[in-house]
Amino acid sequence: MSDAWIKLYYKNVMADVIGAEHGISNSVLDDLADKTVPLIGELNEGRAAYRELPYNEDYPSAVKAVAGDVRGACENFVVLGIGGSALGNIALQTALNPYMYNLDEGQRYGGPRLFVFDNVDPVQAASFLDWIGDKLENTVFNVISKSGRTAETAAQFLVIRELLEKRLGAEKAKRQIIATTDANEGTMRKIADDAGYRTLVVPDGVGGRFSVLSPVGLLSAAVCGIDIDGLLAGARAMDKVVSSTDFYANPAGLNAAINFHYYNVGKPISVMMPYAYGLKDLSDWYRQLWAESLGKTKDVSGKDVFVGPTPVKALGTTDQHSQVQLYREGPNDKLFTFLQVKDFGCDVEIGPAPDCAPELGYLAGTKMSKLLNSEKLATEYALLKDKRPCLSVMFDKVCGETIGQFIYLYEVTTSIAGRLFAINAYDQPAVELGKEATFALMGREDFKEMAEEITPKMQIDEKFLV
Amino acid sequence: MSDAWIKLYYKNVMADVIGAEHGISNSVLDDLADKTVPLIGELNEGRAAYRELPYNEDYPSAVKAVAGDVRGACENFVVLGIGGSALGNIALQTALNPYMYNLDEGQRYGGPRLFVFDNVDPVQAASFLDWIGDKLENTVFNVISKSGRTAETAAQFLVIRELLEKRLGAEKAKRQIIATTDANEGTMRKIADDAGYRTLVVPDGVGGRFSVLSPVGLLSAAVCGIDIDGLLAGARAMDKVVSSTDFYANPAGLNAAINFHYYNVGKPISVMMPYAYGLKDLSDWYRQLWAESLGKTKDVSGKDVFVGPTPVKALGTTDQHSQVQLYREGPNDKLFTFLQVKDFGCDVEIGPAPDCAPELGYLAGTKMSKLLNSEKLATEYALLKDKRPCLSVMFDKVCGETIGQFIYLYEVTTSIAGRLFAINAYDQPAVELGKEATFALMGREDFKEMAEEITPKMQIDEKFLV
Repeated sequence: MSDAWIKLYYKNVMADVIGAEHGISNSVLDDLADKTVPLIGELNEGRAAYRELPYNEDYPSAVKAVAGDVRGACENFVVLGIGGSALGNIALQTALNPYMYNLDEGQRYGGPRLFVFDNVDPVQAASFLDWIGDKLENTVFNVISKSGRTAETAAQFLVIRELLEKRLGAEKAKRQIIATTDANEGTMRKIADDAGYRTLVVPDGVGGRFSVLSPVGLLSAAVCGIDIDGLLAGARAMDKVVSSTDFYANPAGLNAAINFHYYNVGKPISVMMPYAYGLKDLSDWYRQLWAESLGKTKDVSGKDVFVGPTPVKALGTTDQHSQVQLYREGPNDKLFTFLQVKDFGCDVEIGPAPDCAPELGYLAGTKMSKLLNSEKLATEYALLKDKRPCLSVMFDKVCGETIGQFIYLYEVTTSIAGRLFAINAYDQPAVELGKEATFALMGREDFKEMAEEITPKMQIDEKFLV
Repeated sequence: MSDAWIKLYYKNVMADVIGAEHGISNSVLDDLADKTVPLIGELNEGRAAYRELPYNEDYPSAVKAVAGDVRGACENFVVLGIGGSALGNIALQTALNPYMYNLDEGQRYGGPRLFVFDNVDPVQAASFLDWIGDKLENTVFNVISKSGRTAETAAQFLVIRELLEKRLGAEKAKRQIIATTDANEGTMRKIADDAGYRTLVVPDGVGGRFSVLSPVGLLSAAVCGIDIDGLLAGARAMDKVVSSTDFYANPAGLNAAINFHYYNVGKPISVMMPYAYGLKDLSDWYRQLWAESLGKTKDVSGKDVFVGPTPVKALGTTDQHSQVQLYREGPNDKLFTFLQVKDFGCDVEIGPAPDCAPELGYLAGTKMSKLLNSEKLATEYALLKDKRPCLSVMFDKVCGETIGQFIYLYEVTTSIAGRLFAINAYDQPAVELGKEATFALMGREDFKEMAEEITPKMQIDEKFLV
């Protein structure tokens, strides 16, 4: 395994840097340590199921077997999934494959194009179906759903299933579908067994947002040539570090405690701002992890608390020209987490300035990586001037190992933060009502009463339409 | 012009719907009207420069002339710009061209592929340069910068300029570059005139974030076949509506006042959630408009106020499976604005359910548009149950006219909100320090002193690196 590593840098949240009003003093951090260390111990005792994923040997070997069949044998690989069945897949692809992967035959290194559909937009879907229509024989679909009853994924699947069966016949169609679903039960398991699809397992006891290191996230990665062994090795290496009960040596403990602290002192917004295009979709993955895990009305004792930091995605340098005005001058209500890369593994040299524009001479002959990292430091410096707290996650480089470390670091950070907030980080009770209301509005007989309640309430009242 | 229209629906912020604690009573809205109407009048008197863009006839005719030359004559069109020189271009393309536009030769209807580069990431850039390397003769670059000194755009331009001159020679290279820049002065104007590039004008007095309806946003749109006349006609039509001093007939006045109100009563986060994939990048355009215009430390009298709502982008249904848990159960600190589309213009029918899965029967034979819009209503219904205020912008359909209306509606909303907050909505003073710090870190001689101040401060202190 490579010795590339990620580390959390927390100096720029300290009172010594940004002052006593917005910074954390040594004694406050010691208090946070006292509060956090026992929770780390508890989490080490009753380890959540997701924490064993990097040690499971059956999953990657099953994934590799399927990926080996598929990789060279198709030109397009399409994931049908949503939320935790899509965000990890997208994040891995953006981080570890080239920007032009889908457009460039050469850059794909023998793997298929990858598409991930996590919506039911008719315009988007029609455009794609029109394009894929004559390529179905060379296209494999990976439907990912533990139950098979998630409305969006089910709808996409029914569209694709009908299309494949009509165009290729049922026998051929079944070879173009891989279902990642529950090992034993549920709608998709029934369908897959009945139709004879190849299947992979969504593990028990692992919520969607914690499932990227299971077959849910690993298959599309392996099919597209990503080093899944590196991902898992990175996660295992991080597991050792984040299990430490030495608070000051545990980046997940520090990260959780610092985030918890700032939430409680009037900074409920948590901005993750990667300075690397490849890391941008990890912010979206983090958004789900953070929001769905920590946004809860009740604490574990059943008391109303209505907690939850709001995660925000920003991208350096792009969003400097969009959000930094607000970040510096608006209310001091945010904690910033930058992602910074030391070695990009490749570089672009900036060309000479035209003779008539010597004012651009400072750029000539320098590397783009230097500009990007200078902008990161400059933005952070400007924020610190305005007493805004900044964390950084420092990547030696972006590779399977460091991405695996990052994923595991943030998953465990989330578990610890859940304990600090005294909420259940693993459920999502608020999602149910919307699902049921959708059933009602779609006309399901068993939700008729609900439909009768909703319909008049949601009727447009022209008086308020301007 | 088509009679398609957008309207603001504000019933679901009212106290009658979500209760007195979080809703707006009729009398509070009347008070907001009294406060807002004079400001609308003032804005009508001294109209900001951006408000005249839809009436300018020179810009679209110059744009069409250049687009006519380029459209059929190249296979790739690459925008080099950042912030206001990129976000509008991206938003128009996503809204008005097919999802598979870049990949599908058939769907491009005679226009080139479009790429917009708003970053200086070496990995992303290297992947693109590698791909475009042998296609330079068929590629036109549109560099967009009023001054020509924005570091990111200048860096990209110097890379491309060198590449083109080396590969094609200076004479041929100049035909592959179009500069959109100041009419008379600045670095890019000098360079363009010196080299003989074709140019278009970035208008005076229009900030980047208000410039999408100028040649800044219109050229890439026209080159890719978007109906720019429709955009401008839509904006003109909306101008009439948002100039009204009848508060209850003015969607910009209502929108600004409602946003202002919620900011002041503990809801500083403003979530824009389109239920249409095509509208998702309009949320990013809005993020810049809103954050950079309203995020200000000082009010117009010079008093410290530190105001500014934080705009957040979410996408339906995708983010239901990521953010809605937090939105419903977390703190009631957000105002939601949904974008909803009535007629998608095309549809996808959901296939039959397998015999073994009758529980999916409710989806079979229905349209994807029905599912998407049911999910919107269901999510809104669930949020209202938890007393979260919801606005909706209702699109009859997505076309040039309605996108033009939306852009103009939000620009004027921003101007009115700026008056309500009593801040200058048109400057961005906080961006300067970061720019200067970048110059310092890049080694510009004239920023040497600053470099000496920054460098020790930003040095990594290993003690805080875990």
